[in-house]
Amino acid sequence: MTNNAKIISINDLKSNDPSYLETIFSIANGHLGVRASNPVNISDTAGTIVNGFFEISEIVYGEKAFGYAKNNQTIVKLPDLRQIKICDGQQNVFHRSELKAESLDMNNGVLVSTYKLTNDLGKSVELTVKSALQQANNQVIGLRYEIKPIDYTGRIKIVKHLKAISDGEETDDPRKSRTVHTLTYEKHDVNSKSEIVKITTQISKMYLEMAIYTPAALEQKFELTDGKTINFDVIGLVGEINEPVEFTDMPTFEEVIKGSSEFWEEFWKNSEIKITGDDSLNQAIHYNLFQLTSSTGRDGKTNIPAKGLSGTGYEGHYFWDTEMYMSPFFAYTNPQIAQKLIKYRYSILEASKKRARELGVAKGALFAWRTINGQEASAYYPAGTAQYHIDADIAYAIDRYYKVTDDKQFLENYGFEIVLETARFWKNFGSFSEIHGKRKFCFFDVTGPDEYTAIVNNNYYTNRMAKFNMGFAVDLIDEFPEKARELGVTDQERNELANISESVYLPYDQIKGINQQDDSAFEKPIWPFDTTPKDNYPLLLHYHPLMIYRYQVNKQADTLLADFLFDDLSKEQYLREYDYYEKITTHDSSLSRSIFSAIAARIDLKTKAYDYFMDTVKTDLVDLQKNTADGLHVANLGGSWLTVVNGFGGLQVKDGLLTIDNHLPDEWKKLTLRLQYLGRLLQITYTNKTTQIEVLTGASIKIRVDGTVKMIQA
Amino acid sequence: MTNNAKIISINDLKSNDPSYLETIFSIANGHLGVRASNPVNISDTAGTIVNGFFEISEIVYGEKAFGYAKNNQTIVKLPDLRQIKICDGQQNVFHRSELKAESLDMNNGVLVSTYKLTNDLGKSVELTVKSALQQANNQVIGLRYEIKPIDYTGRIKIVKHLKAISDGEETDDPRKSRTVHTLTYEKHDVNSKSEIVKITTQISKMYLEMAIYTPAALEQKFELTDGKTINFDVIGLVGEINEPVEFTDMPTFEEVIKGSSEFWEEFWKNSEIKITGDDSLNQAIHYNLFQLTSSTGRDGKTNIPAKGLSGTGYEGHYFWDTEMYMSPFFAYTNPQIAQKLIKYRYSILEASKKRARELGVAKGALFAWRTINGQEASAYYPAGTAQYHIDADIAYAIDRYYKVTDDKQFLENYGFEIVLETARFWKNFGSFSEIHGKRKFCFFDVTGPDEYTAIVNNNYYTNRMAKFNMGFAVDLIDEFPEKARELGVTDQERNELANISESVYLPYDQIKGINQQDDSAFEKPIWPFDTTPKDNYPLLLHYHPLMIYRYQVNKQADTLLADFLFDDLSKEQYLREYDYYEKITTHDSSLSRSIFSAIAARIDLKTKAYDYFMDTVKTDLVDLQKNTADGLHVANLGGSWLTVVNGFGGLQVKDGLLTIDNHLPDEWKKLTLRLQYLGRLLQITYTNKTTQIEVLTGASIKIRVDGTVKMIQA
Repeated sequence: MTNNAKIISINDLKSNDPSYLETIFSIANGHLGVRASNPVNISDTAGTIVNGFFEISEIVYGEKAFGYAKNNQTIVKLPDLRQIKICDGQQNVFHRSELKAESLDMNNGVLVSTYKLTNDLGKSVELTVKSALQQANNQVIGLRYEIKPIDYTGRIKIVKHLKAISDGEETDDPRKSRTVHTLTYEKHDVNSKSEIVKITTQISKMYLEMAIYTPAALEQKFELTDGKTINFDVIGLVGEINEPVEFTDMPTFEEVIKGSSEFWEEFWKNSEIKITGDDSLNQAIHYNLFQLTSSTGRDGKTNIPAKGLSGTGYEGHYFWDTEMYMSPFFAYTNPQIAQKLIKYRYSILEASKKRARELGVAKGALFAWRTINGQEASAYYPAGTAQYHIDADIAYAIDRYYKVTDDKQFLENYGFEIVLETARFWKNFGSFSEIHGKRKFCFFDVTGPDEYTAIVNNNYYTNRMAKFNMGFAVDLIDEFPEKARELGVTDQERNELANISESVYLPYDQIKGINQQDDSAFEKPIWPFDTTPKDNYPLLLHYHPLMIYRYQVNKQADTLLADFLFDDLSKEQYLREYDYYEKITTHDSSLSRSIFSAIAARIDLKTKAYDYFMDTVKTDLVDLQKNTADGLHVANLGGSWLTVVNGFGGLQVKDGLLTIDNHLPDEWKKLTLRLQYLGRLLQITYTNKTTQIEVLTGASIKIRVDGTVKMIQA
Repeated sequence: MTNNAKIISINDLKSNDPSYLETIFSIANGHLGVRASNPVNISDTAGTIVNGFFEISEIVYGEKAFGYAKNNQTIVKLPDLRQIKICDGQQNVFHRSELKAESLDMNNGVLVSTYKLTNDLGKSVELTVKSALQQANNQVIGLRYEIKPIDYTGRIKIVKHLKAISDGEETDDPRKSRTVHTLTYEKHDVNSKSEIVKITTQISKMYLEMAIYTPAALEQKFELTDGKTINFDVIGLVGEINEPVEFTDMPTFEEVIKGSSEFWEEFWKNSEIKITGDDSLNQAIHYNLFQLTSSTGRDGKTNIPAKGLSGTGYEGHYFWDTEMYMSPFFAYTNPQIAQKLIKYRYSILEASKKRARELGVAKGALFAWRTINGQEASAYYPAGTAQYHIDADIAYAIDRYYKVTDDKQFLENYGFEIVLETARFWKNFGSFSEIHGKRKFCFFDVTGPDEYTAIVNNNYYTNRMAKFNMGFAVDLIDEFPEKARELGVTDQERNELANISESVYLPYDQIKGINQQDDSAFEKPIWPFDTTPKDNYPLLLHYHPLMIYRYQVNKQADTLLADFLFDDLSKEQYLREYDYYEKITTHDSSLSRSIFSAIAARIDLKTKAYDYFMDTVKTDLVDLQKNTADGLHVANLGGSWLTVVNGFGGLQVKDGLLTIDNHLPDEWKKLTLRLQYLGRLLQITYTNKTTQIEVLTGASIKIRVDGTVKMIQA
């Protein structure tokens, strides 16, 4: 089977479950997302999602306590823009439908879905819906409905309106979204060619306008004859939050396609990645980057929801996933987007300072574990607020952005303040204790990335990241002394930060010779893997948290994630740590396998690297976690890029030098990738024998390639 | 001021807040409790409470997880039995009321409340309500209403019915109760002299019948004249749960008083405690024992709600408070009640086995942290289910009962099985780890008694108690081999239990020379007491749990409670531990001061012992925690007895001998107490110079008195 790298079609997929396909073929542009639902037979899971448009409801606790997150923020499902009604001349609706073909072209962003529609008289027509989103002016969707006879000819009536959609069922699965019952819909400026619906959230008091427009009429009759195709074009608008939509300069369907094509052409020019030797993988990685980019807010006010804009899972919240799994791709291929993602964090910095106070920390900022508007929305603090590491994750992303772009202006105006306030948090949150006779800075009662281990002391990842965060703050204080004064930094504070950063305790097991997940990690018994039925994974759905926590069992990479980020181990230690932690990791989180793959690649565990990558890159395309129907695992989309580029491609910035090590899998003939670095567009080509670098645009540059520093000529 | 030891009146109290007085003057008989609310002007906090009569509602979680407690069990507020309506001849209701006097006579259990009632014409009468509960047939309440003129004479109409009462307001305070909206009321057998109301809980499907009966008529007219008092007697019935009430052999008011008097007379004969030298303390301790006994279910199907039957706080649930704070009093004064309290635990043993399975523990039973029907109702597992120590607390209470009564039959038929199943739980819940080079049995992710420290490893109290529990199980296996076989005990299991009990890890700090609360307790920084405003106590209402947990700060005695129970420290270590833990304890729990006082007495910290006792014994009488309005702190009522008897009185059973050490406070001239031991009724008299023991009934017995074993002659 050959796959087209940039076209994904239903034939490439193993499942044809309708809500799974709705997710896989969803299209988005950072602002709005449209699930690929059946347009004549709207499902419970259908709908449009607008990044950052949420309703509020009070979080109800079995037992409340001081400082708990107060409100749910739930992303709202809005009318399905592709919905349509088609009848024959006698008002017999073609309401039975069967998906015949569907494909998404990643060259131009066009989704083509073809259905056989049948009415109660048993007569059928074929409907093809072509959908594309404008990426530059991201309020616009272009829709073309093409109708052809199958065994019905004659009068056809098309009715196109915007309709409120079903709430769906309530669920207990914490990964899904709650339902919202507090929306009001109000239509205005309705005429034969267009209509606007204003949707207001009653509690959060936001509104959004959606509109449709057609050059002819929204209710229209056609004569369907053999050999002829009826075309019906609709342009949809989805306004900015709290702003009215306007019908000015409405593009044609063709113009939308053109705009979309131009965007994706430019995108691939900067982000191209090509795996030669496995078409299926090559297609999957393209799909991942396409969907990741589609999912990403680019306005500095929004971010990347945990399911992108492909579903309402996790309520449309932003997590640390952005900084650790997704923004790396943008930093290296489209730094403007990476910058916007940081600006979003800057926009919620004040809310994060308030949150730190609620946690009893006198200075600094604590970013919400899950949020849209900056306020904490996690209703379970042991695997929410206690994941303080999000603060350092954000600082790390700022450092990465800075290293790749050298954007001093942005650092001075935005990045520095975030790094400083998060560093201040760590300083005021932690405390000195005597550990093995030495005065060490410790963090108590924290949860690391691994959510199967909660409320522990000195989580290695957290401590390592906090150490980095404070050290980075000191670097920036020294680099931007004037700004530092403006931010109230004194010499004393600088020196304290430097000293504390030096003193952070990093648990290490002398006998095992590995970094230790937390103070008591290795004392606990190992999870009874042998007697755990396969159906009992993910464990969180089958065991009480107290059961999970008292064993050595990891949901995902934790200490290994720190290893991945700092890459400061000897190969021997790397191998020991990998071996130890792999045995206790279930990969019940989609954030796990990409890191296991990337590290395995670095330390030449070739089979493991490849096997984990196969699962990573296709998590959604093969529905590995069995919940892609709820939305894409967008962190993992980014994770698969991390694996290829930082793992197999061995790319990182070390000591101010771009560093590339060739760890190409034996299965591949060649890997080509493009990325930006300090203003250059680079193309790197790996084969089993060679690593070649070209400067496509920009000046010559020194790069460390497979251990040797070379000047790559422009 | 002189206080009558066994009469408490409004003049003895500092507050006259109506809902506070409702609690203080509440009367109960283990089955039903009646708050002393204003009978003509029913408050939101008024009502009758029936032990074990609860409604169910689903616990709503912000984020649910596997194995969480499913349902709230909420004790129900039932019609106020004392409520009455009094009008003049023109139907002007005397609805304004002022409490003029109130007193509770602990000699006979009679509550007398006197009100000035005024109607809208400004005319007044005096109403005195006398209330007493039958203690033997505990369905019965006797009520006498006495009406005298103040400036109104003439026609008076009395209307007496049972009415549903107000729900009260919803609250976030976890110590209060939620409101129940799912009751149905149905009156039947209504006639001029009596009526029955059947109250059904819609979800838990329980019913209860309440009835009132008067020899004359429930609506009656009288002529009020100067110098004359109108008497109106009512007998109330509150049936057993799910059983109808019957109007047979209805007693007169005088007969109720007589029955009540006989009960309390017998009670004081066996339980008398007399502090000579401080009338106020002497009164307080009498009050405490009176209310504790009133609060206690005596039928083997109910237990002691955390607020007794004096209020709906903590939803009427039973906690470990019973075994650790309240049942000691009964074991030593009325062992039949102590036995019934254990029988209640036996009645929920099957539910507790199921709960252990839900927690992933293959064998044994885990008792619910808070419950009425045996199912876990704690919606916050870090300070609920994680307090596994309740299992061992119950085993400890069984051991105490056995030591005091030598009731082999009960042990064989009931106690043994509980001890075995809890021991089995510990064995399957814990695990061996290497600690300081030795193979030790550990318990991970547990919470000890101190709720300001949660989800820790090897909590000293928990480990110590688990060790005891397993050791006790081995003793009983050896003592009752036949029963052991019946319960499926093999030699291997017995030996494993013995071996594990021996191997339990008990954290000890070599440098500090004290038992260590848990593995990481002393690494954490000490709570910033100096900068904590007084108004910020109790901390739980002012700080996020994560803030509280990451400091050394105790809500209540934890390691010290183990010390209190096992009394196995040298005096030097006792002093060090006391000094250390006292400094970090806020006593935000009412379970704390009694233990601090008792230990201080034992180790001759006389001032501390006395000061803590003053607060302990009067917790409710001075409204120390400012929430007595919600109900009595019944655990502390029992705690004050512990302090006197086990602390000042130095009483414990050691090596099979009753052991008494005189630690009489200097402030007291004499302490006299009565108790039962191995079938004898003993009276012990302490003065500053002597300790005298009399055997009032039963045979001579050997007792260790102030270090010397003596034969006390009958």
